[in-house]
Amino acid sequence: MIVPRLIERKRNGGRLEPGEINELVIAFSDGEVPDYQMAAFLMAVYYRGLDRSEMNALMDAMLESGKRLDFSHLAKPRVDKHSTGGVGDKTSLILAPLIASLGVAVPMMSGRGLGHTGGTLDKLESIPGFRTTLSLEETERQVEKIGCAMIGQTEEIVPADRKLYALRDATATVEAIPLIASSIMSKKISESLTGLVLDIKRGSGSFMPELDQEIALANAMIELGDAHDCPVVALLTAMDRPLGYACGNALEIVESLDVLKGEGPPDLVDVTMALGAEMLMLAGIAKSTKDANAMMIDAMTSGRALAKFREIIRAQGGDDSVIDNPERLPQAPHKAYFLAPASGIVQRVEPREIGYGVIALGGGRRNMEDTVDPSVGFVITAKPGARVTKGDALATIHARSESDLELGQSILAKAIEIGQGSPSPLPLVSHRVTAKGVETLN
Amino acid sequence: MIVPRLIERKRNGGRLEPGEINELVIAFSDGEVPDYQMAAFLMAVYYRGLDRSEMNALMDAMLESGKRLDFSHLAKPRVDKHSTGGVGDKTSLILAPLIASLGVAVPMMSGRGLGHTGGTLDKLESIPGFRTTLSLEETERQVEKIGCAMIGQTEEIVPADRKLYALRDATATVEAIPLIASSIMSKKISESLTGLVLDIKRGSGSFMPELDQEIALANAMIELGDAHDCPVVALLTAMDRPLGYACGNALEIVESLDVLKGEGPPDLVDVTMALGAEMLMLAGIAKSTKDANAMMIDAMTSGRALAKFREIIRAQGGDDSVIDNPERLPQAPHKAYFLAPASGIVQRVEPREIGYGVIALGGGRRNMEDTVDPSVGFVITAKPGARVTKGDALATIHARSESDLELGQSILAKAIEIGQGSPSPLPLVSHRVTAKGVETLN
Repeated sequence: MIVPRLIERKRNGGRLEPGEINELVIAFSDGEVPDYQMAAFLMAVYYRGLDRSEMNALMDAMLESGKRLDFSHLAKPRVDKHSTGGVGDKTSLILAPLIASLGVAVPMMSGRGLGHTGGTLDKLESIPGFRTTLSLEETERQVEKIGCAMIGQTEEIVPADRKLYALRDATATVEAIPLIASSIMSKKISESLTGLVLDIKRGSGSFMPELDQEIALANAMIELGDAHDCPVVALLTAMDRPLGYACGNALEIVESLDVLKGEGPPDLVDVTMALGAEMLMLAGIAKSTKDANAMMIDAMTSGRALAKFREIIRAQGGDDSVIDNPERLPQAPHKAYFLAPASGIVQRVEPREIGYGVIALGGGRRNMEDTVDPSVGFVITAKPGARVTKGDALATIHARSESDLELGQSILAKAIEIGQGSPSPLPLVSHRVTAKGVETLN
Repeated sequence: MIVPRLIERKRNGGRLEPGEINELVIAFSDGEVPDYQMAAFLMAVYYRGLDRSEMNALMDAMLESGKRLDFSHLAKPRVDKHSTGGVGDKTSLILAPLIASLGVAVPMMSGRGLGHTGGTLDKLESIPGFRTTLSLEETERQVEKIGCAMIGQTEEIVPADRKLYALRDATATVEAIPLIASSIMSKKISESLTGLVLDIKRGSGSFMPELDQEIALANAMIELGDAHDCPVVALLTAMDRPLGYACGNALEIVESLDVLKGEGPPDLVDVTMALGAEMLMLAGIAKSTKDANAMMIDAMTSGRALAKFREIIRAQGGDDSVIDNPERLPQAPHKAYFLAPASGIVQRVEPREIGYGVIALGGGRRNMEDTVDPSVGFVITAKPGARVTKGDALATIHARSESDLELGQSILAKAIEIGQGSPSPLPLVSHRVTAKGVETLN
């Protein structure tokens, strides 16, 4: 293998043999191919792409680099959900216990905040004692016992992906569909799933704002899943405004508990149910969306979904008293309303500014070393299209200090636009992509 | 400076401020920006290019990283010639003494063999004792004393370019016009030239076979020269066949001596004179090509050009007896003719196959560690368009062993094609590019 010749071939738009991709990635993972050659290769891939067999070979090499969860003894279907990342997106927190309570194993591997988006692990860790760093063996045992575990990527799981992702992050080569798809799918395939639901975010708050790219990403992941007997269904959902009201780690746990109790913001409930229905259908537990919805509503109203969340929190060392007393979650010492500065119609609530605003309040990382304050954030009840009167409370700011409240006010003043137009927010769930093709839903 | 953001901006087709380029390159040179980030940046530049001010800033940062030759005390004009690299191209060996003998200072910095092309340093080192590793001070003193020094790039000269070039070589990012132009020009500007003549090779044996790219490269270097008061004139010359007859290090020294003695292959003499005339006109020594040609012919027939070469060889520790006794140069122990396998017209003599053939015989490097056998190579008297009869001697093979003679036969059988067509080789000197524009010469 002469690495510069492989880079050159990709640079010129040629293709690499699966064996060449495999050798390259394994050698990189083992430290035999230096970072600088891989960085140049990744940038060439950014421009030239990877075809189906190249992308498959990349994912297989990443899988080969680590260990997988072993559920060969488990008769249950195993389904996970993955989101491309958004603001206020707490559907994972709700779906893991909800779907597990309906008899589906949910080995859920999540990430931390990235860019302007929040991360499920950071949110879970706002529950006192909650531990997300389970070993593979612990995860297997817990899934076997209670049907669900909510974990982060460990060093055992696809280490080549970890190393490659860190390099991509440092070299501006994150945003390439075959790299995104193979990175996500390598982690999901290592969970030994029998099905995966993707939530691909659309709009200004998403990482990939072009519809054709989102569908291409969905199709890439569907192809990779197919090659490993893991059917994938993708829903394209709105991220031109935050999902639900709460944006901030502990605040989002509170809102997730609301949904599990059968309450919660309608947009969040709708997106969660749409994703949950796909999970149940992939698992073969529900035959239709209607069936699935009835099952989920029953799980919530009966208290079974909430009870499953309690089991998960206990199993992972967390303080489950937060379920009955959410005020035991970390509380910000300073709170204030954000009032409508004028009468009119809410034109937009910009998720990117809200997301970076949570980070500015201390609720996310600017650098990997930063610690996260779980208590801070926003609860924004105003949605695009709402008619408001000057002085109406549109949001609550949760902050560590008086000066941070001021900061929160200025962030919201920029993020929430009031005017006279009739905004056209994206439909909550606009497309459904499966191996059979793309359905437009709204 | 957040490096991934700079890479991302270039990746997306944006431009960097000169200060940003400067900071990036200096930090890379100092080891503060890791190779992998620079590799990704270089690959983005490969696709997106650099505009004039970015390219200038890149070159200036490379110049800033090292020392320059100081000729502030020297009243003489200082002119060098640079070639983009070819096979059989020994014009530097002839021009340095020839032009220096006419009162122009020639501080000539050259390279080693690269890919299929030979390198002036390797050729010079076939002269027993010849030392090309002069320090800046030695170079300055020698140019002052005898008007010429023929050296390699030292660690003092544009170290950022050395580091960047090594990275480009390892990451398939060599072939990008702004990177090529700024790399070459940083070395040339560090020679404190008052003028530079470029020999841009065309055709199958050149690194850049498209005419528009060759003219773009010429224009980029002209712009960079302009910014440093170093006027640049480029000639586009034929490299669809080897230049002259000899291909191989010592063999090319012998042929260069022939030209300096007023003999030598007509194509080599013509290209050398065309480049030399530009050097003399840039130096302000000659007013026209006609004047310049008369001066050069006089320098050769009078023996002054050869005497200058003797001075250079002596000054750099070489055995100057090779001038009168070229057989003292390293001699290959085995020689054989290559005979025309059929009667007809020579269709092509493929320089790439000849160049790689010299390497295969031991006369070049496959890896940086390889030692070069200066004695081996080919002397190919057949030129495209020549009518030959089966059994005519078209070339001589100089080899280390009988089996290498066999190898040489098979290389020439592939490289030299005889047929019935009328080939159209490129004109020897086809275009002249200056700050004023492009002139088509033939």
